[in-house]
Amino acid sequence: MRIPILKLGKYLLISIQVELDDQTAIQFQEDLLNRIHQEGSQGIVIDLTSVDMIDSYIAKVIGDVVKMSNLMGAKVVLTGIQPAVAITLVEMGVSLNEVHTALDLEQGLETLQQELEG
Amino acid sequence: MRIPILKLGKYLLISIQVELDDQTAIQFQEDLLNRIHQEGSQGIVIDLTSVDMIDSYIAKVIGDVVKMSNLMGAKVVLTGIQPAVAITLVEMGVSLNEVHTALDLEQGLETLQQELEG
Repeated sequence: MRIPILKLGKYLLISIQVELDDQTAIQFQEDLLNRIHQEGSQGIVIDLTSVDMIDSYIAKVIGDVVKMSNLMGAKVVLTGIQPAVAITLVEMGVSLNEVHTALDLEQGLETLQQELEG
Repeated sequence: MRIPILKLGKYLLISIQVELDDQTAIQFQEDLLNRIHQEGSQGIVIDLTSVDMIDSYIAKVIGDVVKMSNLMGAKVVLTGIQPAVAITLVEMGVSLNEVHTALDLEQGLETLQQELEG
């Protein structure tokens, strides 16, 4: 079970609409980093609208994906973070200083455009 | 196994990155029509870049999805159609007179914008 990664111009879009088990999350991390490398993507929107809750491991993976993507030169915007997801991310000490957030996919793309194109 | 449907503003984006078995295809048809109804979407891009080949049943389902979406008032753009997929669609007599096509997701969105916004 792989999470589809959509390429839209210079950006990658991901909408997580399945329950994120450990295996799926790690596969997603690997797939995303490979795609950033292949496509030379500068910006990524990860939409979590359909994710009701996450456990501590998934919170760590999400934090890692953001840091790794930043290291590779891609900005990440997380969108549609629900209350329970926000709580777990903060409680697990996932540092999201570097992360931009937005309400939905459309606003996430706008945020990326503002960040990258000034 | 459900195919994720992404909402981007007024449009729905779908990138098919799994092998389309009969069950998945019918589930997708149902999910998409429900989303069009819920969101009042006017335009849909279905990206087939990752689909190497389809059988006659899937060709029929794709043709049906396009017709049903049109009936509900949404324009459909198919993108990234590979040679073997094009061959099956035509051989199965799937009438794609009403369908717009484009090279990739980005150009598909541009096609929709031109169609809908003049």
